[in-house]
Amino acid sequence: MLPFTEVEYRERMRKVQANMNTKGIEVLLVTDPANMAYLSGYNAWSFYVHQVLIVTLDDEMPIFVGRYMDAFCGAIKTTWLDAGHVRAYSDDYVQSTEKHPMDYVAGVLRELDAGAKSIAVEMDNYYFTASCFESLKKGLPDAKFVNGNLLVNWVRIIKSDNEIILQKRAARIVEKAMQTAIDSLDVGVRQCDVAANIYHALVSGTEEFGGDYPAIVPLMPCGETAGAPHLTWTDEKYKSGTTVVIEIAGSHQRYHSPLSRTIAIGEPGDQVKRVADITVEGLNEALATIKPGVTCEEVELAWRRVLKKYGLEKESRIGYSMGLNYPPDWGEHTASLRPGDKTIIQPNMTFHCIPGMYFDDFGVEISEALRVTENGCETLANFPRQLFIK
Amino acid sequence: MLPFTEVEYRERMRKVQANMNTKGIEVLLVTDPANMAYLSGYNAWSFYVHQVLIVTLDDEMPIFVGRYMDAFCGAIKTTWLDAGHVRAYSDDYVQSTEKHPMDYVAGVLRELDAGAKSIAVEMDNYYFTASCFESLKKGLPDAKFVNGNLLVNWVRIIKSDNEIILQKRAARIVEKAMQTAIDSLDVGVRQCDVAANIYHALVSGTEEFGGDYPAIVPLMPCGETAGAPHLTWTDEKYKSGTTVVIEIAGSHQRYHSPLSRTIAIGEPGDQVKRVADITVEGLNEALATIKPGVTCEEVELAWRRVLKKYGLEKESRIGYSMGLNYPPDWGEHTASLRPGDKTIIQPNMTFHCIPGMYFDDFGVEISEALRVTENGCETLANFPRQLFIK
Repeated sequence: MLPFTEVEYRERMRKVQANMNTKGIEVLLVTDPANMAYLSGYNAWSFYVHQVLIVTLDDEMPIFVGRYMDAFCGAIKTTWLDAGHVRAYSDDYVQSTEKHPMDYVAGVLRELDAGAKSIAVEMDNYYFTASCFESLKKGLPDAKFVNGNLLVNWVRIIKSDNEIILQKRAARIVEKAMQTAIDSLDVGVRQCDVAANIYHALVSGTEEFGGDYPAIVPLMPCGETAGAPHLTWTDEKYKSGTTVVIEIAGSHQRYHSPLSRTIAIGEPGDQVKRVADITVEGLNEALATIKPGVTCEEVELAWRRVLKKYGLEKESRIGYSMGLNYPPDWGEHTASLRPGDKTIIQPNMTFHCIPGMYFDDFGVEISEALRVTENGCETLANFPRQLFIK
Repeated sequence: MLPFTEVEYRERMRKVQANMNTKGIEVLLVTDPANMAYLSGYNAWSFYVHQVLIVTLDDEMPIFVGRYMDAFCGAIKTTWLDAGHVRAYSDDYVQSTEKHPMDYVAGVLRELDAGAKSIAVEMDNYYFTASCFESLKKGLPDAKFVNGNLLVNWVRIIKSDNEIILQKRAARIVEKAMQTAIDSLDVGVRQCDVAANIYHALVSGTEEFGGDYPAIVPLMPCGETAGAPHLTWTDEKYKSGTTVVIEIAGSHQRYHSPLSRTIAIGEPGDQVKRVADITVEGLNEALATIKPGVTCEEVELAWRRVLKKYGLEKESRIGYSMGLNYPPDWGEHTASLRPGDKTIIQPNMTFHCIPGMYFDDFGVEISEALRVTENGCETLANFPRQLFIK
C-alpha cells in the first residue's frame, strides 16, 4: 500500500534526525501533512483536525498522534509505524473550546520524558495554528521551543529517484489534462464544464497510473480578470476573444507535476501575443541557466534580462521547489527563483518555473516543471511551449 | 460577479461589528478564507499565502490585505470593496525567512491608529499560524490581543434565504454525483476512475447551476480500511465483496451540501447490513428530533438511544454545522451534534448529520445535510437513505 519501501522511510528519518542534531533539536513536532506523509507514509484527508508526528533523536520510528477515528484504523493499517507508535485523542478534543488536541500531545511528550527538552515546531505551517503553540507552551512550561519551520521541507527538496518516478508519472497525467483543457475550451462552453473535464483527466490519470487530487484546484482566470492568477472558475460561458490562463498539476500518489499554458479563444490581441513570445523566450533562458552549482537568483536574473530587453518588469518570483504535497499548496516553501535566494541548485531538485505575467486586464502564464540533472535540467512534461489559439 | 448583493454583505458586516462591540473588540483580523469571502466576497485560491481582512468598528467596509498579485486585480475587481480598502504586500514577503506578511499587516494597523487597540485574531484557524501571531505581537507591542476564533463563524451559522438557495443548488449537484458514484462502482473498475467520474459530476454540476470545488475531496475508504473514514482513493481495482463508503459534497459558489452513502459491491455481510439498518434508524430518529429550541446534544441523544438498543456505541460526534467553505473543511467548527453541546437549534441553521460507524475491518456511513425549518428540518438532498448493493 505504501508508495516507498520501509528502507526509504527510515533513510528520510535519519536525514531529519541528523538535521535536528546539528541544530540542537531534541524533539521535532511535524504538523505539515506533506512532512507527515514523507516520514510515516500517512496519507488521509484528516489534517482538518489537529494531528502530529513526534520525531525524537533516539527512536528510528516517529509517533503519530491523531484523532481516534483516524489513528486506530488509518494510521495503524496504512503506515510503516507499529501500533505502539500510534496515539489517539478522543473525539471531545475536536473543535472544542475547553480543550485542545495539543493539550493531549503535550501529555504524550511528558510521558516520553520530553517535557523539558528542546522542542521544534513548524511555526508557519497552516496546520500549526497560534492556538496549537499556546496549548503546547501551557502544557510544557519547562520545554525550550525553537522554530523548526521547513526543517523537513529542506530535506524534501532533493528527491530520491523513486520520488522522481512518481513526479514523472504525474507529468504524463498533466500532459493529458492540459490537452483536455485546450480541446474543451470553446465559445459557448461553460467554465465549469471545462474544469470538470480537466478534473476527470487529472483524477483518472493514464491507463498505467491513476491520478490523485492536486494540492491546488485548477486555476482558470480569464478575460479581464486573467491578471488575477488565483481565480478558479464560474458558470459563465466563454466568449470569443477571451484569453484563458490554465494552471494545473498532475498528481500521482501525492507527487506533483504542475503546468501552465495560456489559450486564446479567437485571435488574441497583439499585446497578448507579444507577452507570450517574451515569456517563452525568458522561460527558455531561465531553463538554460539551471544546472547544479548555480543559485536560484541567477536563474531569475536570466529571465529578468530578457524582460528588460523588452522594457518589461515582473514583481513576483518566477518559481519554487515542489513535489509531494497536500492542500493548500504544491509548493514546498523552501527555495524560490527570485532575487536574494542564494540556494545552490543540486541534482534531483524539482522546480515549477512559472514566470506569470499579470496585467490589469490580461494575464499570460507559460510554465514548466523541471528536474535538475547532473549537468542541466529536464522538463517533467513534454508539451508545446507556446500560446495556444483556438 | 458576486453571489450576493452589497446590501447582504453590509448586513453581515453589521452583525460582526455588533458582536465585536459586545465583546469589547475594536479590531478583528479575519484570516479564515470562508470568513473573508463571507464579508468581502473575495473568492480565490490565494489563501496559501497569508492574507487578512481588517474589520474595525467605525468603517462599514473591511480592508483586504494580501499579496500584490492577488490584491491589485483580484481583490479590487471581484469584491464589493473599493480600491482604497485593498492593500498589498510585495512579493519578497512571500515565504521569506527575513520578514513575514503579518509584519506588513502590523504596519497597516499602526497606520490606522489601531496599534494600541483591542485586536481579535482567529487563534485556531489554519490560516493563522503561530508565526502570524508572533509577528503581530512583535509589530504591535501595545495592542491587546484577544481570541476572536470562530466569531464570524458563529454569525455564519444562521444562513440567509439567499445562502440556502445556493446550498439547495449544491444538493442538486450532490444527488447527481452520488448517483454517478453508484453507477460507476463495479468489479474491476479502478478507484481513481470512480473518483474521476464523481469529480466530473461535482464540477460540471447541473445544466442550471455549475459546480464548484468542494472543500474536501471525495472520501472513498473501502474494504478492510473502510473504518478509516478520511482515506481517499488509489489505483486499485474494486473486487467483489468490497464495501465502499462515499462521502462527497456538492458545492455551488463555495456553498456545500454533503452526502454519504455506503455501497456494497456484491452481497454484503450480515454485519454490514445490520449496521446499515441501525444507522438509518438512528439517523431517522436524529432527524425527527431536530427543530428550533432543541439543543445539539439532544439530537445526538436520540441517535445514541437507538444504538444502545442494539448494544452499539459510537465514539465520535454525529454532525456539525456547515455551509460556505474552503479547504481543508466544509464544517464550520461551531456547533457539533454531540454530548455537551448545548447550542440551541434555530431556523436556517444547516447541519451535516453523519453518524459514521467505523469498525476495525469495515465502515458504514449514511448521512444527510439538512436545513432547520420553523418546526423541524428538511434534508437538502433527496436521495434514498439506504445501503446500496451493486
